[in-house]
Amino acid sequence: MPNLDAAFSALADPTRRAILARLALGEATVMELAQPFAMTQPAISRHLKVLESAGLIIRRVEGTKRPCRLAPDGITGVDQWLAMLRQALAKNYERLDEVLATMQPEERKDRP
Amino acid sequence: MPNLDAAFSALADPTRRAILARLALGEATVMELAQPFAMTQPAISRHLKVLESAGLIIRRVEGTKRPCRLAPDGITGVDQWLAMLRQALAKNYERLDEVLATMQPEERKDRP
Repeated sequence: MPNLDAAFSALADPTRRAILARLALGEATVMELAQPFAMTQPAISRHLKVLESAGLIIRRVEGTKRPCRLAPDGITGVDQWLAMLRQALAKNYERLDEVLATMQPEERKDRP
Repeated sequence: MPNLDAAFSALADPTRRAILARLALGEATVMELAQPFAMTQPAISRHLKVLESAGLIIRRVEGTKRPCRLAPDGITGVDQWLAMLRQALAKNYERLDEVLATMQPEERKDRP
């Protein structure tokens, strides 16, 4: 079970969201991540630490590098929570469609 | 375009997520929302203000009441951002399936 408080809090920062968007394209090292952001590697590393402890990324050791990638469990956890709201909105639209379908043409403002 | 910083930050609190989960079932007043949380109405109102300014809920005026409901635009905005990560993970799984499909049976550890 992912820590949703930490996950959503980590997502509230634009640089961290941009890092995740980059990792959506594939694994990357700190150096590769630092380049497009014009940020120092320590600054990027601090963001990576937040993302890692929130369960949104995984880092592995490869010699002196520690490449990062998306953490399926953490992202799925956040996504599953949001699915509940997504389904609620979809249901509301269905209800609206039903109401519109049962209305008489003269009642509908879009058909004068 | 929703403010993703504010939206994700608002979602980082468990009470605010619980309020949204309640609103997924339908519109509710502050009084109705305060009941299950054993919180005062002013405390709930503060959370509602955060959710409203983050674009996640909408409030309407009905006499002295201000019923709340989910804000489709804000929630869709958050959801669309996450869809990018969801699709990236799905693609990774597809690649894994392809790799497994091309492997010879003797290479697969699950088939000794």
